Amino acid sequence: MSQVILMAHGSGGQMSHALIREVFLRYFDGTALAELGDAGLIEDAGLRAGRLALTTDSYVVKPLFFPGGDVGKLAVCGTVNDLAVAGARPLYLTAGFILEEGLPLETLERVVRSMAETARQAGVQIVAGDTKVVERGAADALFINTAGVGALLTPEPLSPRRLRAGDVLLINGPVGDHGLAIMLQREGLTFHSELVSDCAPLNGLIAELLAELPADVRCMRDPTRGGLATTLNEWAGVGVGIEVDEEAVPVRPAARAACEILGLDPLYIANEGKVLIAVAPASAERALAVLCSHPLGKEAAVIGRVTEEHPGRVVLRTAYGARRVLDMLAGDPLPRIC
Amino acid sequence: MSQVILMAHGSGGQMSHALIREVFLRYFDGTALAELGDAGLIEDAGLRAGRLALTTDSYVVKPLFFPGGDVGKLAVCGTVNDLAVAGARPLYLTAGFILEEGLPLETLERVVRSMAETARQAGVQIVAGDTKVVERGAADALFINTAGVGALLTPEPLSPRRLRAGDVLLINGPVGDHGLAIMLQREGLTFHSELVSDCAPLNGLIAELLAELPADVRCMRDPTRGGLATTLNEWAGVGVGIEVDEEAVPVRPAARAACEILGLDPLYIANEGKVLIAVAPASAERALAVLCSHPLGKEAAVIGRVTEEHPGRVVLRTAYGARRVLDMLAGDPLPRIC
Repeated sequence: MSQVILMAHGSGGQMSHALIREVFLRYFDGTALAELGDAGLIEDAGLRAGRLALTTDSYVVKPLFFPGGDVGKLAVCGTVNDLAVAGARPLYLTAGFILEEGLPLETLERVVRSMAETARQAGVQIVAGDTKVVERGAADALFINTAGVGALLTPEPLSPRRLRAGDVLLINGPVGDHGLAIMLQREGLTFHSELVSDCAPLNGLIAELLAELPADVRCMRDPTRGGLATTLNEWAGVGVGIEVDEEAVPVRPAARAACEILGLDPLYIANEGKVLIAVAPASAERALAVLCSHPLGKEAAVIGRVTEEHPGRVVLRTAYGARRVLDMLAGDPLPRIC
Repeated sequence: MSQVILMAHGSGGQMSHALIREVFLRYFDGTALAELGDAGLIEDAGLRAGRLALTTDSYVVKPLFFPGGDVGKLAVCGTVNDLAVAGARPLYLTAGFILEEGLPLETLERVVRSMAETARQAGVQIVAGDTKVVERGAADALFINTAGVGALLTPEPLSPRRLRAGDVLLINGPVGDHGLAIMLQREGLTFHSELVSDCAPLNGLIAELLAELPADVRCMRDPTRGGLATTLNEWAGVGVGIEVDEEAVPVRPAARAACEILGLDPLYIANEGKVLIAVAPASAERALAVLCSHPLGKEAAVIGRVTEEHPGRVVLRTAYGARRVLDMLAGDPLPRIC
């Protein structure tokens, strides 16, 4: 087999079949995919009364490999997390690849292996796939789309519309690591080599939280593109006020230093292993305890609360006691971060 | 709002929200999407006991607009058809867009409108979406991924492994139109202007067939990339022989003429509104009648049968009574056809 991707690998013919056999089926196990039908067929998806969550994300991160992860790991974690924060148990993923002619086969293989490992770790199955090849220069190496199906776990759908004044906001650890790790790698700035992406599947941690507090988790979201500030603004957009204590938001010293040098605000930087959680006031302490007892939540913190005041706005209380409005991200400081 | 796509439209921040509001939500209706959560939530998906089909396809067709369709129509039909031929009722789609910086907003809007119209026509809902923007030159204008979820309709999963010697093969109309329409448009060859893509959602036609013959449809597949010859070879790959009567395969005169000029074989050219169907011998006549009574099957024909002889091979009986082996597509005569 050729050591680089050729146009004929996307033809649907003999070379497509060889690629599927020798790369995709080698790493992605499971009978639904191995059938190579037009769709993955699932006889018992474990969906009570058909309550499901569906999501999709394309991944165009540059570079493909970065400290703490790669586009394949990201493509599984990102979609798993979108299902988990929606209150669903992630079950099945589909994977669509757009490959640039000339891509080394070895690169594709590393990415596919990483996807397979992450899927196993997250307990999800990749049940359908597709590969397209475009001419050299018509795409940047490799793009991946994953769509995901999950079973809704919560008695009613989680939504920012469930937020009430007094609700407590928590996050499972420090913000900014993913975006900064990519940025430093991309720019060849290795002086903060301790900064690695936080990219991780959060479904295990979230399942524990929902098992402990089935009714009191109001809403969750993973603050990816646009960072924590943008997610908070999306929530405030339903008509509640949000107050955040700047000092309470965990940021690693290395991330803070990198932000100062680059002129960035960690609150606007993408995360890939963080979840923002709103819980009813009486459950805040238990929620924090559940998070802290999980490997992906050891540095969890209460960072703010929902208020009756200033509906529609996110207000940051700074270290010096001042208050300033925190807006949604404008512009794009870090393109192609996921 | 800017009249072209900017990097900040992919930031996740204010401009992403404006794009979602002013383009996507304007055409894609449905509450699951309008919620703008991390996933589309569906309270009652109408899946009996969680029997579902999942599929994904990325669409990189060039040009974006062609006689008989465009990338948006294709992205809905292709995924709807993959579910339908798997014996499922298509229910929900996700849509992931990869946009090149500088893409005219008007182009995106035309594509989104076409997707919305086709989804309505096919009776499916688009419940989750994602948009990424890459720098000018890092993608070719616009790529779309759609993933789909369907409810399995057939008592047992359709599969080429259900093929038995004597089974009859049918197709719902002439082959080659889609690939040739794209090819002629791309090359600026307008001398066969009557050739338009056959791109269409086949779920209505297939539902009628399955309602009439719930047990006797063995297997179906839409012969897209690689054409009819490749699909037949995929089926023969399970260990049966297949015999096709060349004269019985419908090909429009204009398609045949274009193939002769371009040196192509219509049996290897992609279709986007065709389905190859294998039925038990006793049901062949009824299947043909069902197909012919539907607007998308008026030119349906019986084209061959499953044989005990030459297992693993597709044999073509030519107009002159000769027999030749029909191989799977090698190489790629028509890249970026879907």
